[in-house]
Amino acid sequence: MTDAFIDSQTVREYLLGLQERIVATFERLDGQPFLRDAWEKPADSVLGGGGLTRIIEDGNLLERGGVGFSHVLGSTLPPSATAQRPELAGRGFEAMGVSLVLHPRNPHVPTVHMNVRFFIAKGEAQPDVYWFGGGMDLTPYYATEEDARHFHATCKRALAPFGADKHPRFKKWCDEYFFLKHRNEPRGLGGVFFDDFHELGFEQSFAMMRAVGDAFLDAYVPIVERRRATPYTEAERRFQAYRRGRYVEFNLVLDRGTLFGLQSGGRTESILMSLPPKVEWRYDWHPAAGTPEARLYDEFLKPRDWA
Amino acid sequence: MTDAFIDSQTVREYLLGLQERIVATFERLDGQPFLRDAWEKPADSVLGGGGLTRIIEDGNLLERGGVGFSHVLGSTLPPSATAQRPELAGRGFEAMGVSLVLHPRNPHVPTVHMNVRFFIAKGEAQPDVYWFGGGMDLTPYYATEEDARHFHATCKRALAPFGADKHPRFKKWCDEYFFLKHRNEPRGLGGVFFDDFHELGFEQSFAMMRAVGDAFLDAYVPIVERRRATPYTEAERRFQAYRRGRYVEFNLVLDRGTLFGLQSGGRTESILMSLPPKVEWRYDWHPAAGTPEARLYDEFLKPRDWA
Repeated sequence: MTDAFIDSQTVREYLLGLQERIVATFERLDGQPFLRDAWEKPADSVLGGGGLTRIIEDGNLLERGGVGFSHVLGSTLPPSATAQRPELAGRGFEAMGVSLVLHPRNPHVPTVHMNVRFFIAKGEAQPDVYWFGGGMDLTPYYATEEDARHFHATCKRALAPFGADKHPRFKKWCDEYFFLKHRNEPRGLGGVFFDDFHELGFEQSFAMMRAVGDAFLDAYVPIVERRRATPYTEAERRFQAYRRGRYVEFNLVLDRGTLFGLQSGGRTESILMSLPPKVEWRYDWHPAAGTPEARLYDEFLKPRDWA
Repeated sequence: MTDAFIDSQTVREYLLGLQERIVATFERLDGQPFLRDAWEKPADSVLGGGGLTRIIEDGNLLERGGVGFSHVLGSTLPPSATAQRPELAGRGFEAMGVSLVLHPRNPHVPTVHMNVRFFIAKGEAQPDVYWFGGGMDLTPYYATEEDARHFHATCKRALAPFGADKHPRFKKWCDEYFFLKHRNEPRGLGGVFFDDFHELGFEQSFAMMRAVGDAFLDAYVPIVERRRATPYTEAERRFQAYRRGRYVEFNLVLDRGTLFGLQSGGRTESILMSLPPKVEWRYDWHPAAGTPEARLYDEFLKPRDWA
């Protein structure tokens, strides 16, 4: 999409404010502060720009959680960013976004991911092309219908002002995107996902991205508050560690954002702060029938209409 | 390379015998048996064939270790197998190999990887094309010069009969291959690596692959025997868990064998048995100067002429 008016400064300000609101909320919920790590790409790099990484490790609520802002400029759009629009490959670009993954310690509190982003592919002879992307998805270990319904309903409500087609499209896109082909298994319960979005023009597409970013705390915090005091066992921690292995597999083998970051010479520690703190792999493990662990696979790790 | 005589049955028998010798040795060293898991691809799959997975978990010596044999047929060579020879992409193929990764419990015993493999790209109008590949490499947590020299010298000795150029070429290839670009860091101490190898003709190329496979126990077992009784602390176990994260990153983001397996619809559990049992990620962690952990980075995680 080309547009007379692309206001990337306003997008940047929104993203920085969103990061601050989210971090402040989780510092309050956790009781421990997030580390603040500002970084810049070296001046001689192909890529300019920088970011602000906020991270907590060994917190009370969060065993590991990162909320990153980044704003980078590059000379050549890498293949992971143009899979669906090969005609843009090789253009200069500007990319900014907020991306978070929170890994709670208590296995009854789901892991969550949220990302909102804005891309500009620089024209030389042609005009600039921009698009928005974003979404959020929930990955529980011991799931409940109540949490699944609440998370999806909040996403649906956030998208409603932008057309009745948006939530079904982005819910389906999320189910398709967060799917581990090599396991024939979804990563979690899904949520919403969109990319290459510009069809409403700059103002309304930006508003839709904001609606998703702003809905995150409403979608996730009530679940945290409901589940954080649930007692848990060492066996439940081991199931959590095992399931976190799927998260690692998804992010390192399949995730477009991770591959974009690593391919474009991004800052590795900031990209990989999405990985869980403690993970286990076990050979060909399956939960015994009738257990709460089996229930996750049987009832929740299937695309369902939760909203 | 095309050849009048490609004896894939003899290669298969060698590989199965090698797997048996290695497993028998580690069952003796560990005191616990390896599980035996034979698998077949379903008949309606694009891919035929099967394999034999031998795996140990929670052993005395090995916290997790897998020695896999596989022999698969496919209708279309995936891109990961033909990166260097795009003219073969899309051909039918036959691939067989033995691949192992052993993750000892004691952080003073290095992790090791070895793989030997044989490929045939099926001709239709043209003759079949074959090649061998293989290698082994060592990934210590608390390294010693003695072990590094022994491992590399054993690889060098094994390759000597096949020409003086082979060891330097394959040592360098290994250093280049097992390198984490996104960390600017080698995976470990290296060893040898070769691929697309046919330049000595079928008989001698096969003999060279056997020499590498046969050298594995000589290269690794003396290191195990020297280090397995070294006392270790919980802090050393945590460093091991942290460094194992690099192993996961390499195998899931970069390893050609892993990507080939996942892309060609291979058996996921058998491919991912290379992943370590317990892993940790920590944000932007660096060892304090002067510690044994810093010594690993300063003295060992650099390509050096160890042999």
